[in-house]
Amino acid sequence: MRYARISVEGRAVWGRVGESDIELLSESPIDGEPSVIGAVPRATAVWLPPVVPLVFYAVGMNYPRHIAHAGARTPDRPEVGYRANNALTGHGSPIVKPADVEGRFEAEPELVAVIGRRLRRATYEEARTSVFGWTIGNDVSARTWQHQDRSFWRSKNSDTFKPMGPWIETDVDALAQRTTLRVNGEVRAHFPTGDMVFDPFDHVVEMTRHLTVHPGDVLWMGAESTCRIAPGDTVDVEISGIGVLSNPVHLEGT
Amino acid sequence: MRYARISVEGRAVWGRVGESDIELLSESPIDGEPSVIGAVPRATAVWLPPVVPLVFYAVGMNYPRHIAHAGARTPDRPEVGYRANNALTGHGSPIVKPADVEGRFEAEPELVAVIGRRLRRATYEEARTSVFGWTIGNDVSARTWQHQDRSFWRSKNSDTFKPMGPWIETDVDALAQRTTLRVNGEVRAHFPTGDMVFDPFDHVVEMTRHLTVHPGDVLWMGAESTCRIAPGDTVDVEISGIGVLSNPVHLEGT
Repeated sequence: MRYARISVEGRAVWGRVGESDIELLSESPIDGEPSVIGAVPRATAVWLPPVVPLVFYAVGMNYPRHIAHAGARTPDRPEVGYRANNALTGHGSPIVKPADVEGRFEAEPELVAVIGRRLRRATYEEARTSVFGWTIGNDVSARTWQHQDRSFWRSKNSDTFKPMGPWIETDVDALAQRTTLRVNGEVRAHFPTGDMVFDPFDHVVEMTRHLTVHPGDVLWMGAESTCRIAPGDTVDVEISGIGVLSNPVHLEGT
Repeated sequence: MRYARISVEGRAVWGRVGESDIELLSESPIDGEPSVIGAVPRATAVWLPPVVPLVFYAVGMNYPRHIAHAGARTPDRPEVGYRANNALTGHGSPIVKPADVEGRFEAEPELVAVIGRRLRRATYEEARTSVFGWTIGNDVSARTWQHQDRSFWRSKNSDTFKPMGPWIETDVDALAQRTTLRVNGEVRAHFPTGDMVFDPFDHVVEMTRHLTVHPGDVLWMGAESTCRIAPGDTVDVEISGIGVLSNPVHLEGT
C-alpha cells in the first residue's frame, strides 16, 4: 500500500495512492484506523511530506564506499543524529538554494524508515516489525556551511533542504532495492540501497536501548554518493519498489 | 498568565494555572483562542512538558563564565543545535539515569523561549514580539557519552533527559531574572539569567535568515554553570518570575 499526505483546500489530508486516484482518509494509517472520506485525481495532487515526525533521526556515514571516499573510520556501532522538521518539503516542491550559499550545494539520496509503533528496548525482530513503511529522502547539504557551523543547522536544515516522499510504501523489501540519483534525467549516482554498514533495524535496536521511538518517527539511512545541484535543475531520487522523489531547484528570491 | 499542559484521564490538556486551580482549556493558547472547559485542583495535577515543539532548538556556549570555564572561544554569531522530543518530561516526573551511564551525570539550568508565531527573516523587534512566553529547562547530560558519541543522541537525548516546565509564563521580563540550581534544597548554581553572549532575539534573527520558526518551537538558551546529580536527588531549577522546575532522579530499573 502507498500512503501519502496531500494538501486539500489548504489542509493536510492522508491518502491512499492508487494508479489514477488518491483516496482521502479520515486519519493517519500509522497509528489510526482510517476510513475513506473521498477521492481526488492523482494528477492534480499537491504532495506534502508523507509524515511530520516527533523526532527526525538521520544516520551519517553508513555506506562502505562513502566512508572510503571520505577517508572516514567505519563506525563500530550504530549512531544517529538529527534533522529539523522546518526543513521538510514534499515531492514536486522546490528546493530553494539560499542566495548567500557559496561552494558545493549537493543532493544526498536516502532510504527512509517510518516507525509504526512505540518501542523501547527492541530486539532485532521487534525492530524489523516496527517499521510501518518506507519512503525516500534527499538530504540537501550546503558544504561550506557544514564546515563552518558548530551543528548542521544552516547547512542541512534551512527551509526546503529536506524533501521527503512522494509516499510511504508498506509492501517492499526496502534493503533489496537500488537507489538512483538523477539530475535533469542524467544518472549521477546508482547503488544498492541495502549496502549499509548497519541496517535500519540495527539502528532501532541500538537507539531503543536509550530512547523510545514513536509512531511516525523517521530514520534517514545515509547515502553512498552525492552530487552537485544548481538552480534550474530537477533532482530525482528513485528507489526501486518505492517510487521517485522529484524536486526542482530554485534560487532564493527568484 | 501561566499556561501548562497536564494529564487528564490519560490525555494531554492545556490549562491556565491559578493559585489553587487549573482551568482546563479547549485548545492551545499559543495559536488558538481557547475557551474554559473545566477546572482541576492544582495540587493534584500531573504536569506534562508545556509544549511539544515542531523543532527543539538549543543554544550551546552562551554565558561568558561558562565559556571561560570551558576554555572555549566566544561565539562570533548566534548558532543553534537540536534536542529530541522523546527526551521531554514534565515537572515532577523522574529523570531516569540509565544503568550503563558512567562518569559525570549533570544538570544544566536553562531559560526556554516558546515561539508564538510563524516567522521568517525577522527583525530584532519582530523576534522580540514573536515569543509567546517563557519556561524552564534542565539539559540533563551524561558527559562520558557526550565525548564518545558523534552527536548528542545518547548523552543529551535519552528518555527523560529533558525536563521542561512547569508552565509557560507570558508576563515576565525573562532576561532580568536570576537562575538558581538546587540539589536537595542546597544551592549549587546561581546566575543572572540574562547574562548571555547573544540573547534569544539575536538567535531568532539569525535563525530566521535561513529557516522558518513555528508556533510552539522552543529555544533553550544554555547555562552558566552545571552540577552533578545522582539517583535519590531532587533537582530544582528556579528562574525568578517564572517558577520552579523540580524533578527527582531515579536509577533505571529501580
